[in-house]
This record gives sequence, C-alpha cells and structure tokens, in this order.
Amino acid sequence: MHKKLFIPGPVEVKPEVLQACAAPLIGHRVPEYAELHGACIEPLRRMLGTKNDILLFTCSSTGVMEASVRNCAKKGVVVCMLGAFSDRWAQICLQNGKKTAKCQVEWGKAIRAEMIEKHLKTGEYDCVLLVHNETSTGVMNPIEEIADMMKRYPDVVFVVDAVSSMAGVKIDVDRLGIDVILAGTQKAFGLPVGLTVSAISPKAFARAKELPDRGYYFDFIEMKAFGDKNQTPSTPNVSIIGGLKFQLERFEKEGFENRYRRHANLKETCWNWMKEHGFGLFPEKGFESVTLTCASNTRKVDVPKWVKRMSDRGFVISEGYGRLKNDAFRVAHMADCTMDDLKECLGVMSEELKKL
Amino acid sequence: MHKKLFIPGPVEVKPEVLQACAAPLIGHRVPEYAELHGACIEPLRRMLGTKNDILLFTCSSTGVMEASVRNCAKKGVVVCMLGAFSDRWAQICLQNGKKTAKCQVEWGKAIRAEMIEKHLKTGEYDCVLLVHNETSTGVMNPIEEIADMMKRYPDVVFVVDAVSSMAGVKIDVDRLGIDVILAGTQKAFGLPVGLTVSAISPKAFARAKELPDRGYYFDFIEMKAFGDKNQTPSTPNVSIIGGLKFQLERFEKEGFENRYRRHANLKETCWNWMKEHGFGLFPEKGFESVTLTCASNTRKVDVPKWVKRMSDRGFVISEGYGRLKNDAFRVAHMADCTMDDLKECLGVMSEELKKL
Repeated sequence: MHKKLFIPGPVEVKPEVLQACAAPLIGHRVPEYAELHGACIEPLRRMLGTKNDILLFTCSSTGVMEASVRNCAKKGVVVCMLGAFSDRWAQICLQNGKKTAKCQVEWGKAIRAEMIEKHLKTGEYDCVLLVHNETSTGVMNPIEEIADMMKRYPDVVFVVDAVSSMAGVKIDVDRLGIDVILAGTQKAFGLPVGLTVSAISPKAFARAKELPDRGYYFDFIEMKAFGDKNQTPSTPNVSIIGGLKFQLERFEKEGFENRYRRHANLKETCWNWMKEHGFGLFPEKGFESVTLTCASNTRKVDVPKWVKRMSDRGFVISEGYGRLKNDAFRVAHMADCTMDDLKECLGVMSEELKKL
Repeated sequence: MHKKLFIPGPVEVKPEVLQACAAPLIGHRVPEYAELHGACIEPLRRMLGTKNDILLFTCSSTGVMEASVRNCAKKGVVVCMLGAFSDRWAQICLQNGKKTAKCQVEWGKAIRAEMIEKHLKTGEYDCVLLVHNETSTGVMNPIEEIADMMKRYPDVVFVVDAVSSMAGVKIDVDRLGIDVILAGTQKAFGLPVGLTVSAISPKAFARAKELPDRGYYFDFIEMKAFGDKNQTPSTPNVSIIGGLKFQLERFEKEGFENRYRRHANLKETCWNWMKEHGFGLFPEKGFESVTLTCASNTRKVDVPKWVKRMSDRGFVISEGYGRLKNDAFRVAHMADCTMDDLKECLGVMSEELKKL
C-alpha cells in the first residue's frame, strides 16, 4: 500500500516529480549539465529575493549546517537552540572545535532577538546560527525581528537553516541580510532527499577565505569557483537537480505568492481541526510554524497507537519528537500538499481518533 | 535524443533501476526504512568479503574521502598520488590541516608497495590513502602487493577509494585488511549519483574515537551508532538506497563472480579494439584498469572532435582528463554495460574515426 506522507520530511513527492528525477543520467562535465544546473539558479534567486550565489550541495541539510560552521565561524559562534535540530547544530559546532555560545530556550518557545544580542554584545562571536523553523517543536522563529537586530552587527555572519520553511514560506534573503540560507530538497521543495540548496553572500565568502581548515567537500570557495561555471567540484546529484528544475518551473507557474498563500491556508485548516478536536498547539502563541503543525496532546490520547493506525490506513503523521513522543504529534502540510490532500488526512485522523 | 553513457561516471543506468529509485518516498524513522537499509547490508558484506560495518553516506564519493581523512589520520597521512582524483585526496588532507606525505608518480604509472613503505618506515604516519582505480588515467594500482606490505604496519589505517572499481572488480576487504573502503553509487553499481557505500573496520572506528575534531556529518562513530539500528543520523538518500537494494538483488542473481568476469571480458574487447585501431593504452603495462580503458592517442587524431561526433551519434565517451585532453581518451565499460552495448559503441567509434 502506498502511504501518503504528512511528516515533516521526507514529504510526499508527486509521481511526475519522481519521473523528472528518473530521467536518464547525464555527465556532469558536459554542456547539458551546466545548462540544467544554470536553469535552477535564477528561479531560486527570484524565490529567495537574492543576488547571492546559489550553491547546490550533494548531501542532506545537516551537511550544509556543518559547512556553515566550518566556513563562517572564526572567533566564535552563537547557536540558537530550541529543539532537536537546532540542538544538533550546537553539537556540530563543538565537534568542529568552535567556541560556542548556546542561546537556548525550552522546547516550544521561540528565540527572540535580545537573547542573541546579549551574546553578540560581548564582541566574542562572529557568526549566528538560527534555525528558522524548528521541525521537532513546530516553532517558527521571528526572523524579521532577529534580522533587524543583526543589522547592528555587520561583521557577524548570519546563517539561517530554513530546512522546513524554504519554498513554503516567503524569506526575503537580501532584505533580511541573511548571509547563508540552506534547505534540503525533501521538505517544502517536494523532492526526494539528497540535495541541499543554499544562497551564500559575499560576506560569507570573505569569511570562508579567512578560515584555512574549512575542509574540501563543503568548501564554499571551491563550490563557488565551480558554481560560477554552473558546475560542482564533485559529482552532483544530477537526478535531483533535474527534479529541482522541474519543480521550480511548477513553482513559477503556481506563482511564489500563491504557493505561500496555499501553505498559509493549509496551516489555518490544520489549526482549526486541532481546535475543533480539543487539541492545543505546542509552540508558544505567535510563533507557530506555517509548514507543519505540532499539536499538544491535551486530550492525552495514545499518540503512538493513533499514528500506527493512521499508517495502517495509508497516512503517515508523526509522533512528538524524541521525549515529546506521547505529549505531542505533528502533521506536515507543505510542498505540493493540496487542501484536498490535507482534508483527506484530517478526515481519517478524525475517524481513527474516535476509535482510540 | 537519449545519449548512452560510456564515461567513467555517472554511468548508464537501466530504466528499471531508475524506476526502482523513483519509488514513493518513505520516512527514515519508520520500520520500513530500517528494513530497506538492512536489506542492503548483508549483500554488500558478501560482495566485499567483509564482516566490517557497512555505512551508507548521503553524498558523492569525495565526501567520504574527506570523512576518512578526518576520522582516520592522527599522526599523519601518506597519500598515493597518480592522477586527478588521488591528487584531490592530497588537497583534502591539506585543507583539513593533516600532516601529509605525498607518494607521487607521473600520470599513467602505478603506485608500488615500496613507495608507500618508504614513508611508513619513518613511523610518522598512521594512515594510508590509496585510490584503487584512478579514473583520470585508467591505472589500477596493485592492491594485493600493497595490502601485503600494509600487514607489516598493523597500527596504520588502510583506506581505499574504490570509486570506479567496487562492484566491477573483486576486492576481498577482510583478506586484504582494508580498514575503510568507499565507492559512490554512480559508477560500477549502475545507480544515480548521491550515495556512497563504505565498509569500516574496528581499527578505523578505534582511530576515529581518538580524533576529537572529526566533525559531525561524516563522523564514523555517529554513523555507526545509527547504522547499528539500520538508520542514519541525518536524512538518508532513501531513493538511491531503494535502487541499491534492487541492484544488489540483480548482482546476486547474476552472481558476483560472473559480474566480475563480464567486466574482464568487456575490458578485453575494448583493448582489442584499441590495438586493432592502432591506439596504445595509456597506463603502465600490467596496471590497466578493468572498468575503464584509457587509450593513448598514438594516432594523433582530433580527440575533442571525435568525442563531439560520438555524442552527436548518441554515445558519450571521454576525452583525456585535464591536461591529457587531446593525448588520451577514455571508454568506460562497467556496471550494467553488456558486450552488445560496448560493441555498439565501438562500432560507432570505428565509423566516426574513419571520418575524422
């Protein structure tokens, strides 16, 4: 049985997108490849509102989270910790021997500008790592407020993990002054796993040049040198880049604004279902994610049982992450998810909820 | 027009393999994923003749070349340099701040055991990096001879890049005492780009534990902790892992020995064509690759023109690599390439050669 994914990645990928990824392989040093690679760049720049370099990394998002640390943190790094994935970034900093200030809140809370600024004021840090949308808790951080504050620290490189928001939520990279933004393709892009899209500013490249031990596979400078020729230093994930081109054409056909509006509408519908069925939202009010709903298990239902039964019916939703396993549950509504898809899933959730 | 690939990666991928990779996505924290992941492990162990841990990295081969450096080189590393890809490994060592001894020969020559041993005798190095099959020159290093020598240095971690040989040439990992072996899926596995298969020995894991700055995405220890549960720390390339399972079943149906024999026969046929048409082989005699033929342009034909015309006919072969552009050309015959496929390509090469 085909099970439809309503988990926060990998997401459901449309059959025609899977077929676009299943095109015959081409070599990565032929003009056809450069053409394909190049065809993705301008649409991505338009989507992200940026003139920065777009680099395509063959890895999942964690790889470019690490790349950012190795390429952008010289004096020290402030890492915003609000859940499993942002916590992982702190771990990455430590495992790369970087001086790390932990800007940490309890799960469900958002990071506020002043929490980061407290560390920046010391002058000891030259890099900030912010997860925009924390997939484990469903919290979306106030990126506008944080970006405003960051403008007072022009020497600090501002890195944003937009893994579960990019392509589902509008993020104006240049207006916000984001130096590095990254997202894997298996979330709101509606593609398989294996490629991470990033936009890198001149400031980030300048910083990278000052760091001799930034490594090779994730070296921003080497990636840019090849990116300038619409290539990559190592063999890229040609198949997903083919799918990315296909998806970007679809995005522009839908219209980016319409796409974001669709995501906002899906969120509204999901929240309403939660309210109607007596569930609260896990995140702090005003900081709830648009691409996935993390609900509080206020009714104390047996979440793992419910999730299992949903799966048996062909709909995959998520338990709470890690220690939240039974205290929360998550429904993702991103990428190519339509209102009908979501309503179908919510309908089955209602049915199975009654039987718990 | 679909162009058939006879380049040393990406290689031609069979339509049914592309379809296996185009299966609907599944989550990576569900039992179905662990089952899929687990289904690849024992066949890979059988293929490689090893009891070591099999780790699946979501990246192209260069990523795990870097991983090996960060996880295995403590005192210093001896890197065997005989062409573009092995030279890259030296670059990776330097960009990760490792003390590096260059064991270098001119392009076309092979690395011999005594060249490596000269460095090991100093006692200053605890890691050897050997490219088995150098894709840029078509040289296959004498791995048996080198492995025999390595047995005299039990504290040295022996890392082999088998990128363009694994699954096409028999490599008995445990008998040879290889601590880390790696290969991307887009070569003799006959799969798309985006996954790197590796087998890691207890000695390599022990070394990794001594290295605090081995990073995160490519951390052998973290990968093993999740690998023990048939999972990966970050989202894996589920689609290619699905294709890998499909291919491994096909390999076992063909029989590994038959598969290796097929590769040896393809090589013979390709060499004979070269001889008949007055071309020499670029590699030193006795060290020619089995999976790709690198021919010397002894007839001084216009290689780029020939390659272009072949492409126009729907057959992609390679010029010489880098500075060998016009002095050599390469025809790969690996993965699912049949004798008929190769003969068809060689036939068109004959036709186009006459017209040059």
